[in-house]
Amino acid sequence: MNSHIGPPRVTALEAKSLAQWIAFSPFIFQATVVMRDRGLLASVDAAGEAGIDAELLATQTGLSRYGVGVLLDFSVDIGLIDQVGDRYTLAKTGYFILNDEMTKVNMDFTRDVCYEALASLDDSLSDGKPRGLVALGDWENLYDGLTSLPGPASESWFRFDHFYSDRVFEEFLTIVFSSEVNEILDVGGNTGRWAKKCFAHDPNVKVTIMDLSQQLEVAAKDIKAAGYSERFNSYAFDVLRDDGAYYKGADVIWMSQFLDCFSEQEILKILSHAVEVMNQDTVLYIIELFWDRQKYDAARFSLNATSLYFTCVANGKSRMYHSETLRALIDQSGLVVEQDTDD
Amino acid sequence: MNSHIGPPRVTALEAKSLAQWIAFSPFIFQATVVMRDRGLLASVDAAGEAGIDAELLATQTGLSRYGVGVLLDFSVDIGLIDQVGDRYTLAKTGYFILNDEMTKVNMDFTRDVCYEALASLDDSLSDGKPRGLVALGDWENLYDGLTSLPGPASESWFRFDHFYSDRVFEEFLTIVFSSEVNEILDVGGNTGRWAKKCFAHDPNVKVTIMDLSQQLEVAAKDIKAAGYSERFNSYAFDVLRDDGAYYKGADVIWMSQFLDCFSEQEILKILSHAVEVMNQDTVLYIIELFWDRQKYDAARFSLNATSLYFTCVANGKSRMYHSETLRALIDQSGLVVEQDTDD
Repeated sequence: MNSHIGPPRVTALEAKSLAQWIAFSPFIFQATVVMRDRGLLASVDAAGEAGIDAELLATQTGLSRYGVGVLLDFSVDIGLIDQVGDRYTLAKTGYFILNDEMTKVNMDFTRDVCYEALASLDDSLSDGKPRGLVALGDWENLYDGLTSLPGPASESWFRFDHFYSDRVFEEFLTIVFSSEVNEILDVGGNTGRWAKKCFAHDPNVKVTIMDLSQQLEVAAKDIKAAGYSERFNSYAFDVLRDDGAYYKGADVIWMSQFLDCFSEQEILKILSHAVEVMNQDTVLYIIELFWDRQKYDAARFSLNATSLYFTCVANGKSRMYHSETLRALIDQSGLVVEQDTDD
Repeated sequence: MNSHIGPPRVTALEAKSLAQWIAFSPFIFQATVVMRDRGLLASVDAAGEAGIDAELLATQTGLSRYGVGVLLDFSVDIGLIDQVGDRYTLAKTGYFILNDEMTKVNMDFTRDVCYEALASLDDSLSDGKPRGLVALGDWENLYDGLTSLPGPASESWFRFDHFYSDRVFEEFLTIVFSSEVNEILDVGGNTGRWAKKCFAHDPNVKVTIMDLSQQLEVAAKDIKAAGYSERFNSYAFDVLRDDGAYYKGADVIWMSQFLDCFSEQEILKILSHAVEVMNQDTVLYIIELFWDRQKYDAARFSLNATSLYFTCVANGKSRMYHSETLRALIDQSGLVVEQDTDD
């Protein structure tokens, strides 16, 4: 890796502007959230190319003329809307804020799970603990509190988590079931969404989810509701425990967006323990998003931002990894990589 | 005003990236603060063109290798630093974050005064009250609490306030004292910095500060310490009160970055009451930053961001104005504009 990476070169004047953009970025964030949630972007969008003026926007949204005024003036500066004379039209960035599902999921996650917690980033880096988590509840790490997160945080966390996992499930079904599979061990199976996909895809496959006991309750309930209880098995186990053993007997072990929740040292331990319950024919799948493997700058940027969520909200020591880092840990654990596929 | 204003046109792909940048902007803000305050940017800067690697940065800053890693990867994405191989050098935006006084003042103000409060922007817009102020203390508006703000907020607020007022004082001394002046009425004189400039500039001039009583105490103390007590006069008055009268007798009335703290209706009242104590020869100076009068996009952007601080921290109803808005209020109050100067 010898080439320059990062955003394009900027002039000194542009850099000074960017520095102000960063210095005031919490203003940008909250103003944009309000422009979206109070219906201003939707009203501007509905007005099409003809545009709409501030008076009518105030009437349509129920906000004061003053409130609409400060939001509109700043929104032009940050590129959400365009102004021609006294009329406003939707700009491209505003279009994505309003309509793009990924953007919505990211923004709600930032607001409901991370905004307050991020103020503790410095403290979290000091002692390796997720110091911002206290904004959501009194747990040692986020996973202990996952089933009891307060309202908006819970919804936004799961929407964020599922958005990035669900979209790859279909593709992986084809890969996993290209060979005969009797039983899958889903490590950190969360709410059982992958398990349900497997049950639906193959009428004979069994799935065991190995996870923390409180998560298993949620998964078991959902899977029962979907009518798959008979082929489902719960195995309560904290992969960070040193005593006890992993579930044994599956011919496929599945770790999807799971290892990024742990430190390098922990990942090595998790993989090594997995090796203990594997035989020559067991296949271990590791599905991860690597920031060095992204085609688009925005994707790499989003993954590196997510690392800071792990730092100050989740557990203080995990992150979205560089693929070479994880590759080295896999090698060290004694596993052999048979296939390394980008989607 | 018929031309297009706002940021340059972007492609759809750039707009989608910008939308993610906004969605994750609180991450950008907090990571940048830590990069600055924990000495990472300074260490990268000191390494010059040769750059520095993550290991050495961890040693120099006392942060964990993990902590340095997540910060560096994200900092490359947001343009604070550049990466070549495993070495990091300072990028232009990082240079301004590290060295530019205005950027530092804006960033500290955002962090210490506004960050937490901004989460209440929506509520503030709903009822016209500064709902975020509760993060700093239990006052109806910021001015009531200005002399008792908690530590970092107090320092950052005054540094922000003074940075934008002090830089114009020297220039204005020449203008104000180009005619003979006996007494200046400084309306909303805050900590008395302009008064002290006047005392030092003209050995005969008297200054009366008209402000809330708690502010006057601070100003009086500072002015006494500077040895100007004999020519100084305190006049305690809340300009929003309907009873009582403004101080009468000054030949110059001075309102510097004062009117932006009020709603349009209040400004009209303030100006009209000022007219009552003026005679044919009294000169009223109004110094304001207007977002439509800025040469640079970044300046307009900063002023429109500051409006949202007024919305959710200061008093819920004031803002940085368009010059035409203030001009209309001046005309309505019966005042005549003799001179309208951009700096």
